[in-house]
Amino acid sequence: MILLFTDFGTEGPYVGQMKAVLHGFAGTVPVVDLMHDAPAARPKPAAFLLASLLPLMPQDAVILAVVDPGVGGPRAPLVVRLDGRTLVGPDNGLFEPAARRAAEAEWFEITWSPESLSASFHGRDLFAPVAARLASGAAIGGLAVESAAPRIGADWPDDLPEVIYLDRFGNAMTGLRTGTVQKGQDISLKNIDISHARTFTDTTPDSIFWYENSNGLIEIAVNGGSAAKTLGLSIGTPVSFDG
Amino acid sequence: MILLFTDFGTEGPYVGQMKAVLHGFAGTVPVVDLMHDAPAARPKPAAFLLASLLPLMPQDAVILAVVDPGVGGPRAPLVVRLDGRTLVGPDNGLFEPAARRAAEAEWFEITWSPESLSASFHGRDLFAPVAARLASGAAIGGLAVESAAPRIGADWPDDLPEVIYLDRFGNAMTGLRTGTVQKGQDISLKNIDISHARTFTDTTPDSIFWYENSNGLIEIAVNGGSAAKTLGLSIGTPVSFDG
Amino acid sequence: MILLFTDFGTEGPYVGQMKAVLHGFAGTVPVVDLMHDAPAARPKPAAFLLASLLPLMPQDAVILAVVDPGVGGPRAPLVVRLDGRTLVGPDNGLFEPAARRAAEAEWFEITWSPESLSASFHGRDLFAPVAARLASGAAIGGLAVESAAPRIGADWPDDLPEVIYLDRFGNAMTGLRTGTVQKGQDISLKNIDISHARTFTDTTPDSIFWYENSNGLIEIAVNGGSAAKTLGLSIGTPVSFDG
Repeated sequence: MILLFTDFGTEGPYVGQMKAVLHGFAGTVPVVDLMHDAPAARPKPAAFLLASLLPLMPQDAVILAVVDPGVGGPRAPLVVRLDGRTLVGPDNGLFEPAARRAAEAEWFEITWSPESLSASFHGRDLFAPVAARLASGAAIGGLAVESAAPRIGADWPDDLPEVIYLDRFGNAMTGLRTGTVQKGQDISLKNIDISHARTFTDTTPDSIFWYENSNGLIEIAVNGGSAAKTLGLSIGTPVSFDG
Repeated sequence: MILLFTDFGTEGPYVGQMKAVLHGFAGTVPVVDLMHDAPAARPKPAAFLLASLLPLMPQDAVILAVVDPGVGGPRAPLVVRLDGRTLVGPDNGLFEPAARRAAEAEWFEITWSPESLSASFHGRDLFAPVAARLASGAAIGGLAVESAAPRIGADWPDDLPEVIYLDRFGNAMTGLRTGTVQKGQDISLKNIDISHARTFTDTTPDSIFWYENSNGLIEIAVNGGSAAKTLGLSIGTPVSFDG
Repeated sequence: MILLFTDFGTEGPYVGQMKAVLHGFAGTVPVVDLMHDAPAARPKPAAFLLASLLPLMPQDAVILAVVDPGVGGPRAPLVVRLDGRTLVGPDNGLFEPAARRAAEAEWFEITWSPESLSASFHGRDLFAPVAARLASGAAIGGLAVESAAPRIGADWPDDLPEVIYLDRFGNAMTGLRTGTVQKGQDISLKNIDISHARTFTDTTPDSIFWYENSNGLIEIAVNGGSAAKTLGLSIGTPVSFDG
């Protein structure tokens, strides 16, 4: 299975062209749109979102992850093996939190190159062909060489105390796993104390609360409203708690 | 084939996580997004929409249907067999109109449970694993026990005289199959009489009319405009006709 | 592989119903959403967009292309073979630019008809069944008869000097392949001269420029802004250059 994690959006031909490449090489291997609205051009919050989703993916999945504002520049293209799963994408920190949480991480720099490489669409021209070959059973050795762990992200925290994703209802995912905060403990955001609730149904209308979302992250919501609007949140808004 | 009918929207990782579970178990079985913008948290209109789409689906399809505002509460998880097709989802009326229109309906309550069940995402944790197993040929008997027909929806009409879906152009699907109204007959909505036309091309600019849509439902449109805006429609707006 | 190119949008059940038909007949043949936001009801710009994408598609792909404002009227349903690829859709010019760029083009008019044909959804009822059969190896002969090249589009230019697609960032694709303009040459749009840049990173904030996009088309952008808003562009806005 190949899973796609990008900031491309679903409009236009971009995701479709990438899938045409994937199926063109890998045939009927299932290709799943994990998400295409990862934080746009923001590898850091995207990295913590990806790390929260990865443990729920099949053990032998290939994840094609493209949040790549540096496309066309000098950043290296990577393959990373994390406990059996294989991730393909740019060297900009996108795989750092996931790697740090893995029992075993092996890093490779892609050496394979296509006959024709566009300036702006390495997802289609470089990363997808490599992901398709790996999902079809090709050895990493023919496509990439072992490398040291990258330095980008090495100084990032284990959990990111920021908003990393806002859904269409205005609920705000943070980069904090629920284990980092006790359930009785408040978190604080824009100088407002926010207490825990198990689910929406345990709260009263208009109340602001945090709960453990289905990825294991602390998520902030307003019962019957939008946390994003009520609190003025955006990707990167800091969250604090007495850690 | 597994067909997805939900109110999740296509943003975020939710549909993707469900598909990762489906393909993780069922391999290359095709998984089709039938729609992800079913009436949000409104099982009743969603049920009439689903019933209109079902006859067009393959005879042996598995339909994973999740419009489930009661997730985490006491509502039961169901499997229903309707004339060969298999539906999986919550016991909140979502399958009632489809069952009433089927020659044969068999109801089951899901007894299988996953190792880990999130509070808010039974689509991924419970319904998807069951749907994947059924699509892969598992017997219902190992996953669910026969049960009586549910009571929710038993008092609903055969056709719902309400708006059940608004598309991006502002056309309004109703829960009325075209057989319930004669073609010469007007329907009425917000005290406005609306007459029949075969297609858009049979009408004049700005005229309001109803036609048989491609699901066999009465749909209300404005030539060159938005019925939703012109008439102030929303999901649930009542429609009347001299039945 | 079957590729979908439509103006249906991704909301509602339309794309899903078409895919249910495709997989119902063609089983696990991969079905890829190439794009569903082609210029709505505008076959001419859609045709130039499709022509730019086609060379990047697998050699044996079946492309189901539906931008079909004349559905239900007298326009013929077509199959076209272009250098090994097969296109299925309406006779309204949609395949003309792609055919003109192909080494070999063979045209056929569909004679197969379904048991039941809705007035408004030939994508699902007619084109999808034909595409599924062709992707499964059926001979064209059983579904369509050879015909002369259509006349619609015969008077169109080889490259369309108009805006043909606006993405969500406001970048504007034109119907001009980059080979039609020299890289040192300016193009002009709304009386503004626009010069070439290789990528966004070669430009200064707020500058307007054109570059070769990943489909080989001239695309107009504003660094850090929206070309669509800055220049007041829409599908069909004329572009000029000293050719």
